[in-house]
Amino acid sequence: MRPPWRRRRAGAALLLGLLAAGATLGIARAVKGRRASPLIDGERLASFSSLPPPSPPADPVAARRVALGRSLFADPRVSKNGDVSCTRCHALDAWGADGKRVSRGSDDREPPRNTPSIYNVGGFFALLWDGRQTDLTAQAREVLLSPRTMATTPERLAQTLSAVPSYSDAFTHAFPGEKEPVSFDNAARALAAYEETLVTRGRWDRFLEGEPSALTDQEKAGFNRFVEVGCVACHFGPNVGATMFQKVGLVKAWPNTRDRGRYEITKRDSDWMVFRVPPLRNVARTAPYFHDGSIASLPEAIRMMAHHQIGRDLEEDDVTLIAAWLGSLTGDPSP
Amino acid sequence: MRPPWRRRRAGAALLLGLLAAGATLGIARAVKGRRASPLIDGERLASFSSLPPPSPPADPVAARRVALGRSLFADPRVSKNGDVSCTRCHALDAWGADGKRVSRGSDDREPPRNTPSIYNVGGFFALLWDGRQTDLTAQAREVLLSPRTMATTPERLAQTLSAVPSYSDAFTHAFPGEKEPVSFDNAARALAAYEETLVTRGRWDRFLEGEPSALTDQEKAGFNRFVEVGCVACHFGPNVGATMFQKVGLVKAWPNTRDRGRYEITKRDSDWMVFRVPPLRNVARTAPYFHDGSIASLPEAIRMMAHHQIGRDLEEDDVTLIAAWLGSLTGDPSP
Repeated sequence: MRPPWRRRRAGAALLLGLLAAGATLGIARAVKGRRASPLIDGERLASFSSLPPPSPPADPVAARRVALGRSLFADPRVSKNGDVSCTRCHALDAWGADGKRVSRGSDDREPPRNTPSIYNVGGFFALLWDGRQTDLTAQAREVLLSPRTMATTPERLAQTLSAVPSYSDAFTHAFPGEKEPVSFDNAARALAAYEETLVTRGRWDRFLEGEPSALTDQEKAGFNRFVEVGCVACHFGPNVGATMFQKVGLVKAWPNTRDRGRYEITKRDSDWMVFRVPPLRNVARTAPYFHDGSIASLPEAIRMMAHHQIGRDLEEDDVTLIAAWLGSLTGDPSP
Repeated sequence: MRPPWRRRRAGAALLLGLLAAGATLGIARAVKGRRASPLIDGERLASFSSLPPPSPPADPVAARRVALGRSLFADPRVSKNGDVSCTRCHALDAWGADGKRVSRGSDDREPPRNTPSIYNVGGFFALLWDGRQTDLTAQAREVLLSPRTMATTPERLAQTLSAVPSYSDAFTHAFPGEKEPVSFDNAARALAAYEETLVTRGRWDRFLEGEPSALTDQEKAGFNRFVEVGCVACHFGPNVGATMFQKVGLVKAWPNTRDRGRYEITKRDSDWMVFRVPPLRNVARTAPYFHDGSIASLPEAIRMMAHHQIGRDLEEDDVTLIAAWLGSLTGDPSP
């Protein structure tokens, strides 16, 4: 059988095209009947999925661990000088980020990269711009210790929290049976347990779960352009990214190579300018963009991605449509 | 700093463009000075690397294991009816494949997919079209047992090989100190050890190692088009592929969904039509193409990939250039 793009070159293009589309939809519907939508080919949706709501804690201990993590996340006492909480940079009412080019940590020091959102991190294949952590607990330990963020030490943290009676109780109940429940490692575990619950579901999820009217026609058209332009090669999955690494400046060199991504860690040529593909949920609310926070406008970020990653200079109409669809990825923070 | 694509819209485009190119080349050269080439931007090469020649066996036992694997690889007695050797489908003088749409196994049965080349498999992130194996020994076991290929059983294989005095000796020396050296598992281990040595190096490797004249200007232009068109998003690394999974029909649905790739194994929507990105070394010599072996012509395979994966209908000049570069990926089988 000749492929459709060949057939389209011959006559009878429209009829065959319709037949092919019908067949595709039929097959796709068999796989994912719940996603029928008149404007979007069902097969295109196979690369995406909705986010499940965070599962309720498995048992009372797990629930206490999450509750403890929630308290710690908002508490500046976890930092060296008692002035930097996780929420300072991961503002829960601002989609988990802080809107700054780069954040400010202890002693006003700047971490080297833009702060990524804390929402939905439980589903990422790797954490941070260079993906150097894959485990939320290890990640929490790193941030607590890093001189540019919390800048504390395991001993100082345990000492500070032990002196707070309510924490003493909370750790004991969250880590029952342990001899020294108030510890640096347990604080990191509780933070990780809490972070797993930070999920934003929104209209995109409702659409994927079978509610075609959850997206406007413009947003649906934007999704189609997102796929057709080729963005989907890297941005797919439940978080529309965060499933793989990719080189930034794949087709046209990235304008700024001060930060060389994974190369900074591995020193391997093949990691030159390679970063984790960022997730795009809530992207309309988490400017500025890119690892250096250098771009404040979403349309500009879209244009740059198309130019540098795909080698295409998009028409403004396409930028508008894609931005509209990305807006539908904004979700409501989990309660 | 505004990115170059923005600057190019303002005046003084040529001068700034040249400056930017110079800066990029300068940085790239600092990373990979050995790769200076007047026609190819050094940074574009960072995603690729040459294949190291197979390392000589670490010790006499390893050498004997490789030699035993070499014998087994060419011996039809490893199959149920004594008529199907590994070389039947992985012809070593035909770049490790057999040129058929699908091969023929025991009792003339057809495996479900086109036979991929056996060369360079030691460097792949996963094996087979759907990446279901990641270990060469496990893969050898699967092929020996599969009813559509060798169709043997562990017992039959051990019995057959034990009856051959030279094998009896060879296994004893390759697996010294073992009580029953002639075994199914050891046969698979020896095959895997041999397969690790099957490396094809060629002009592309010499080019990457600092010999600019190893490629013609047409091939260099073809490499640039390969990057600019966007093929490099999936085909990179030492094997120009075999580093990741990707959906076939990413932008325009694949014409044939009889074989649904990893979905056949996982039944997950997100694996619908997802296959391992095939390596492109020796691609000019290993037609026919794709998991179903449906396309015999390399230019046609290039056109289809651009259309279905990237949504671009390539000019014939680009197809010719890209095919020329792919030809430079042909290597010489290791001795």
